[in-house]
Amino acid sequence: MGRKILILTEGLSSPHSAKTACSVIRYRRDEVVGVLDTTVPPQPAQALLEVGGDLPVVNTLDALPEANVLLIGIAPSGGSLPAPMRALVLGAIQRGMDVESGLHEFLNDDTELAAAAEISGSTLRDLRRNSERDVAKRRDISADCLRIHTVGHDCSVGKMVVSIEMARGLAKRGVEAKFIATGQTGMMVEGDGCPVDAVVADFVSGAVEKQIIAHQHREVLVIEGQGSITHPCYSAVTLGLLHGCLPDGLIYCYEMGRKMAKGAASVALPTIESQRELYLAMANAAHPCRFIGVAINSRTADEPAYRAERERIESGWNLPACDVFRENAEPLVDAVLEMRKD
Amino acid sequence: MGRKILILTEGLSSPHSAKTACSVIRYRRDEVVGVLDTTVPPQPAQALLEVGGDLPVVNTLDALPEANVLLIGIAPSGGSLPAPMRALVLGAIQRGMDVESGLHEFLNDDTELAAAAEISGSTLRDLRRNSERDVAKRRDISADCLRIHTVGHDCSVGKMVVSIEMARGLAKRGVEAKFIATGQTGMMVEGDGCPVDAVVADFVSGAVEKQIIAHQHREVLVIEGQGSITHPCYSAVTLGLLHGCLPDGLIYCYEMGRKMAKGAASVALPTIESQRELYLAMANAAHPCRFIGVAINSRTADEPAYRAERERIESGWNLPACDVFRENAEPLVDAVLEMRKD
Repeated sequence: MGRKILILTEGLSSPHSAKTACSVIRYRRDEVVGVLDTTVPPQPAQALLEVGGDLPVVNTLDALPEANVLLIGIAPSGGSLPAPMRALVLGAIQRGMDVESGLHEFLNDDTELAAAAEISGSTLRDLRRNSERDVAKRRDISADCLRIHTVGHDCSVGKMVVSIEMARGLAKRGVEAKFIATGQTGMMVEGDGCPVDAVVADFVSGAVEKQIIAHQHREVLVIEGQGSITHPCYSAVTLGLLHGCLPDGLIYCYEMGRKMAKGAASVALPTIESQRELYLAMANAAHPCRFIGVAINSRTADEPAYRAERERIESGWNLPACDVFRENAEPLVDAVLEMRKD
Repeated sequence: MGRKILILTEGLSSPHSAKTACSVIRYRRDEVVGVLDTTVPPQPAQALLEVGGDLPVVNTLDALPEANVLLIGIAPSGGSLPAPMRALVLGAIQRGMDVESGLHEFLNDDTELAAAAEISGSTLRDLRRNSERDVAKRRDISADCLRIHTVGHDCSVGKMVVSIEMARGLAKRGVEAKFIATGQTGMMVEGDGCPVDAVVADFVSGAVEKQIIAHQHREVLVIEGQGSITHPCYSAVTLGLLHGCLPDGLIYCYEMGRKMAKGAASVALPTIESQRELYLAMANAAHPCRFIGVAINSRTADEPAYRAERERIESGWNLPACDVFRENAEPLVDAVLEMRKD
């Protein structure tokens, strides 16, 4: 029986707070049967999440009895199960549904939920659970596979989507490319990967290196970035990932108008130009590397403002730039193809 | 009953491989009754570890029946219990001794050891076990407490000892200073702290920030560095720590003649001058910061070579420099006192 996924976004059904839900709908639409949020009237997902078309948002588990997987559609900072979701997760388990979660707090460690799953036969899948215990070795890394890494100005600027769109765009052009998921949402989309932010700090680079070595028989790997190298909370994750995947080429991702760090509202973001230099310095300390493109997230801008920004970046950075949502990833795909010729 | 510590270094009794043992002997000498290594003849610790004077190295548990704590005296990369140590740890537990470990692999998770401890009433203390789950907040950090952080060219260059010596040197000069331990050995010495390399990556900076906030009623905190910002395995830990403790002043620590990264023998170290710039850039991205001194580890150099190196650094970097083992930490203590006047 195929997966019929109901995505839980209880009280958090917006494009920004339900990032996980939106990405799973965008990329695994054929497996998703609906969205569950008891705090809003039933309606099409598009109206709430700006994705999903007429996919139904329902407000009881009864509304979609065919669903066999409940997927927690959010990834809050800190990663605990929000209290309002608890009863719904328990209800799903009691119906025998599997539950898939990318939270830091593991469902399997929750005595009540685990006991209920034991009774109903549900499987609780904690995507962030890992037992990574290997340090990086910097050995056996192939020079024949081009490694492209998306890095960003801040969290939630679109690094994952850019990475997926680039890998798909490359595949369409006949390149054997793979998206390397490094976060729980990317893993839900791709079906494999490594939840680097949940790895014990000593082993972050080693865990990433293993992903690279496992998949470097491809021609190109597009490795999803996390956080930012200057983020008050997550810079450790970002640097461990950068030094674990040893990129040849970097894509810089940012959102127009973002001024303050996500999750640390008192901390101003550096300019994208100054941060670019930090990425270059830290990446090149490990492996020769350069920026090959810029991904602009222009969700808050109108079309003329976006076009002006794109021109400014293309001439200022002397690199192709685009919004992969608003347009497509072709300029970035071209940049990778160009790099492969070098 | 006070702690009477027997330090286990089985087969690894040298100053470099038994770093933990050496530091515990150096700083908790009054609690240590001996060193256990069944692979060498009984002898004074000084001969094997270059520390400890006539502290006995014994080759059976029977030799020191008064010992009530077995302390694992090593911290290998990867952090597993070396196989030859296992029977000795079990033997100690069966005698009712407590066991203290800084390994990544937890004694309490080992079914056989945990069962034996259950029977004998031994306590197994896993210093790296933690349940850190808070991201950094960048709030409530006092400007009245001066934060000094030791950073280094590589692992095992002396950052912990430099930090301890500086904190003690400051205390002797009447400054309310505290050493903030960030690794298992530092925690064994200080009795508190946080094992940052064993924290889940998302929470490294948050865990460090909590240490700062807990102790910032002092005048000066000297925060132990870990790894290096360019280390192939551990740069995530280093940057998370740097961005979690937000230093005002940095002490650069390196070992003369070190060419390759410890634990990644194929990776050449950057020059100390180029790495200094990376530390400055990454630290200043979060908080205004400058280097105030250099700690030279000259263990492989003779006196004239050390003196020449110290002169070269003092004039080239325009900072006080010294080897705290060979001389003392006074030039670095003076640098902190100078900074407090600013």
